[in-house]
Amino acid sequence: VFLSDTRTNAGVDHVSAARKMAVFEQPGERVLVLLAAGNLALTQAVMHLLADPSDPARPTLYNAATMADAARIVGDAVREVHRRDALSLAEFSVDFNCSFILGGQICGQGPRLFMIYAAGNFVESTRVSPYFQIGESKYGKPILDRIIRPQTRLEDAARTAIVSLDSTIRSNLSVGLPVDLVLIRTGDLRISQRMRLAGDSPLYAEIHGSWSHKLEQAVASLPGFPWEGR
Amino acid sequence: VFLSDTRTNAGVDHVSAARKMAVFEQPGERVLVLLAAGNLALTQAVMHLLADPSDPARPTLYNAATMADAARIVGDAVREVHRRDALSLAEFSVDFNCSFILGGQICGQGPRLFMIYAAGNFVESTRVSPYFQIGESKYGKPILDRIIRPQTRLEDAARTAIVSLDSTIRSNLSVGLPVDLVLIRTGDLRISQRMRLAGDSPLYAEIHGSWSHKLEQAVASLPGFPWEGR
Repeated sequence: VFLSDTRTNAGVDHVSAARKMAVFEQPGERVLVLLAAGNLALTQAVMHLLADPSDPARPTLYNAATMADAARIVGDAVREVHRRDALSLAEFSVDFNCSFILGGQICGQGPRLFMIYAAGNFVESTRVSPYFQIGESKYGKPILDRIIRPQTRLEDAARTAIVSLDSTIRSNLSVGLPVDLVLIRTGDLRISQRMRLAGDSPLYAEIHGSWSHKLEQAVASLPGFPWEGR
Repeated sequence: VFLSDTRTNAGVDHVSAARKMAVFEQPGERVLVLLAAGNLALTQAVMHLLADPSDPARPTLYNAATMADAARIVGDAVREVHRRDALSLAEFSVDFNCSFILGGQICGQGPRLFMIYAAGNFVESTRVSPYFQIGESKYGKPILDRIIRPQTRLEDAARTAIVSLDSTIRSNLSVGLPVDLVLIRTGDLRISQRMRLAGDSPLYAEIHGSWSHKLEQAVASLPGFPWEGR
């Protein structure tokens, strides 16, 4: 399950929208999804490098032999942008701030999920850490920690991710609608489901509208305090 | 409702416990609760100043005429500690990092709630912002935003606060058990209820144990995606 918002900002005066999800798909052979967070100029520069057709000898996400090779290709692109931009950014005291999530499946191999740091190094998800977040992650983390397990159904994981991101949207101005959702079922080797959810999407509106009420009911069903005598 | 954890840390090698809640109570006349977050040496220095009996002319939380005066007394104590310590801390590149929540009621006046910043200035809660958080606040904010309203029952607000803090405890090492809970009912002019909850307190254990399951049920009850056909 991949979910990303579309809000970008450089201060509250400069709020805009940008897609933060890229799909690399050869149906039946491979499907990879790349999510980006951080400085938009940096993440776009990385995305452009990854999509650059000018050097046919350059390894790409379309010909990487394994998912780990694909993560390495993303990390190398981050390092190339760092070599090009970091010094100029430092002159303006701008951090080299970017991170990525890369997941998907290549034919004949299992699905894998990686998080790539600004330094170009990366970590892989495990059974005990079955999800990654990048960007403004704290608000939405508790519900993921409480629900997401390796055995969680794909659609329940997607609903949980939407609630998590909606929590962040309510609590922080730097995250905003619409959101892009992609589901890939193991073995499909293509995007299984794709949705863009806006505030007026029935599913999103119901989550946004009914989640508070469901939480209130859940809180009210917790045990009473000793003095409540219930 | 006042809730505070007891974890303090100066890096993962120096983890300890300290009470972050102080009660100033003259039953029937006034009750004030002060919560502290940030650098423990600073918040303890502020607490000591507030409890200092050496200068009988000094205004205190026990003789402040109004809750706003009480917030000003806390702010002045913060500024006194700043004058004394900030330069020395700066030499070690340590931020002057502390913040406080002050709430309560003085006889003949309504209950009020303030948040006091490291600069000694402060803001008051309103009907649209009926709660304050200090310290590691992001993880626990969404559930407060979704549930806490001026009309929320006191015990439901307390349960919500416990779930919020438990979310933070699960997701972040810098917050930890036990937690101190205080309830003050309007007009009581004394601590109405006080509890220390540890991991083996039945209420806390049930919240910690059953909340994930309640959230899972809530997520499963959300509307399906179009392709689920439910």
